[in-house]
Amino acid sequence: MRLATLSNGQPDGCLIVVSRDAQRQLPADGIAATLQQAIEQWNSVEPALRQLADRLAQGDGDALDESRLLAPLPRAWQWLDGSAFPQHGELMQKAFDLPPIETDRPLMYQGLSDRFLSGTQDVALPSEADGIDFEGEFGVITDAVPMGTSAEDALSHIKLVLLINDWSLRAIAPIEMKTGFGWVQAKPACSVAPFAVTPDELGEAWQDGRVHLPLEVHVNGAWFGNPHGGEMAFGFHELVAHAARTRDLVAGTIIGSGTVSNANFAEVGSCCLSERRAIEMIEQGAPRTSFLKFGDQVDLAVVRENQSPFGQINQHVVAAKF
Amino acid sequence: MRLATLSNGQPDGCLIVVSRDAQRQLPADGIAATLQQAIEQWNSVEPALRQLADRLAQGDGDALDESRLLAPLPRAWQWLDGSAFPQHGELMQKAFDLPPIETDRPLMYQGLSDRFLSGTQDVALPSEADGIDFEGEFGVITDAVPMGTSAEDALSHIKLVLLINDWSLRAIAPIEMKTGFGWVQAKPACSVAPFAVTPDELGEAWQDGRVHLPLEVHVNGAWFGNPHGGEMAFGFHELVAHAARTRDLVAGTIIGSGTVSNANFAEVGSCCLSERRAIEMIEQGAPRTSFLKFGDQVDLAVVRENQSPFGQINQHVVAAKF
Repeated sequence: MRLATLSNGQPDGCLIVVSRDAQRQLPADGIAATLQQAIEQWNSVEPALRQLADRLAQGDGDALDESRLLAPLPRAWQWLDGSAFPQHGELMQKAFDLPPIETDRPLMYQGLSDRFLSGTQDVALPSEADGIDFEGEFGVITDAVPMGTSAEDALSHIKLVLLINDWSLRAIAPIEMKTGFGWVQAKPACSVAPFAVTPDELGEAWQDGRVHLPLEVHVNGAWFGNPHGGEMAFGFHELVAHAARTRDLVAGTIIGSGTVSNANFAEVGSCCLSERRAIEMIEQGAPRTSFLKFGDQVDLAVVRENQSPFGQINQHVVAAKF
Repeated sequence: MRLATLSNGQPDGCLIVVSRDAQRQLPADGIAATLQQAIEQWNSVEPALRQLADRLAQGDGDALDESRLLAPLPRAWQWLDGSAFPQHGELMQKAFDLPPIETDRPLMYQGLSDRFLSGTQDVALPSEADGIDFEGEFGVITDAVPMGTSAEDALSHIKLVLLINDWSLRAIAPIEMKTGFGWVQAKPACSVAPFAVTPDELGEAWQDGRVHLPLEVHVNGAWFGNPHGGEMAFGFHELVAHAARTRDLVAGTIIGSGTVSNANFAEVGSCCLSERRAIEMIEQGAPRTSFLKFGDQVDLAVVRENQSPFGQINQHVVAAKF
């Protein structure tokens, strides 16, 4: 099942169910007005939402206007982003001669969640000098997760899967990281592809709490990378359990994987400029790829069985107006 | 003007205006249903709210039932906590032989904001072994702050001032801090004293974006400290501007000062166990004060002109039920 949020002038938009070919939709009004409402009472509303999906599969529904789609959750009460791909960490440490992060625990920070940009919205940032970068990653939305939930039990709390662009400012990130406090300025609002999908929608590509599909990245129309989501050191269920160790997770919590990265990066490329620059530093002694300039375009997509389960992110970076 | 939120079975409660002696209240219905709604349209609702405060000052109003008060914002879209008292940082560095945090910027992390406990709610945590500690601090609530707002301009975006207990788990904090990612497990939900006050309510004690009042802490009924809020290295307006450097701040953003701490700590004590333990390590070679046990009580209050502008935090730590 694929869910999306249609702009209706309200902050949370309104919930719709979308056909597998992304051509048609049925409104979920009468079941749940918004995705946040749906996730708060998932077990009771899911059957009715799936009935709409069944009707769509049979050809029912209205034409979908993709230009009206917001992020599935245009705002959320909690966004916790991991960094679960060890290859990414290793490359960054090697390039910058950093000590390895000594931990056997998942890496995770709490980020800005009061707004998530849609997949087509311009990304307004204050300065090219901040080192504007993207991070292609997967994410999940959970229902309410009680404190102390085990990783095994956490799997059933993962209700929806997302494709996310975690915008990052690389000139600020190491300065903030060095304080130990995590990132505030270096992590502006993320963008989210339009469709939130139930794990079963991904078929056998959803395994061990991981999305075993390549994430295709293009920058200004040129191929940049397509590493797959299978090489997470911790599955999403383990990230959920980590987050719930000392807190109840509110329904609608979004948890991210961190930049997707694979051991065979030489063939599959990267999901962020920073990682490609690190590879260039290691292999060629200096970074050759620039960070983004205003006007640059970043496209993220996942293709499975000739369809795009999450829809696409096609965005431009622009100068914020003051 | 003092605002508070009364429990009504809804997640955000309902907004009331409270008399200076905390004996009476008038409901704000018809003006703004919740504090979040009020802060979203502050400039248009403030005059009507102040009319209610005037009526209360003249003796009007209904009896206030303090037991029904929630945190002023029972949940918020954004909680950014600073660490603006240099004395606290210096003591921690000296005790643990840490390198100084090399930055001339404010320290800040993004924390859990989907729930704020009331000042009387039990604080349910999973394990005494996590090193349960409190942090007495001040906070502010802003209206919408555009990206790039200067510190000077940020002052007028500070609409309300808060008294906060930022619960902290000290066995986990250094492990998370070492990753550079900031804190997730080490920072469960904060508690907030019942009254959010406009800066003018603090009179001359609100100066330079700082609360020049002592924060009185008692643990299990014994005096623990009363350092004042004037020694912040950065005022709240500077913290707001720091946060807004690369993002628009959503209306209802809460920004914290970090643990209040003074240079004359020997006389005024501390606002967290961890700082007292650091002083003991420096002066006596080992910490002598224990972290909290289940059943322990922590009381925070501020007294000004024989009144308690923020109301009080009187809470017990209890074992979370699994």
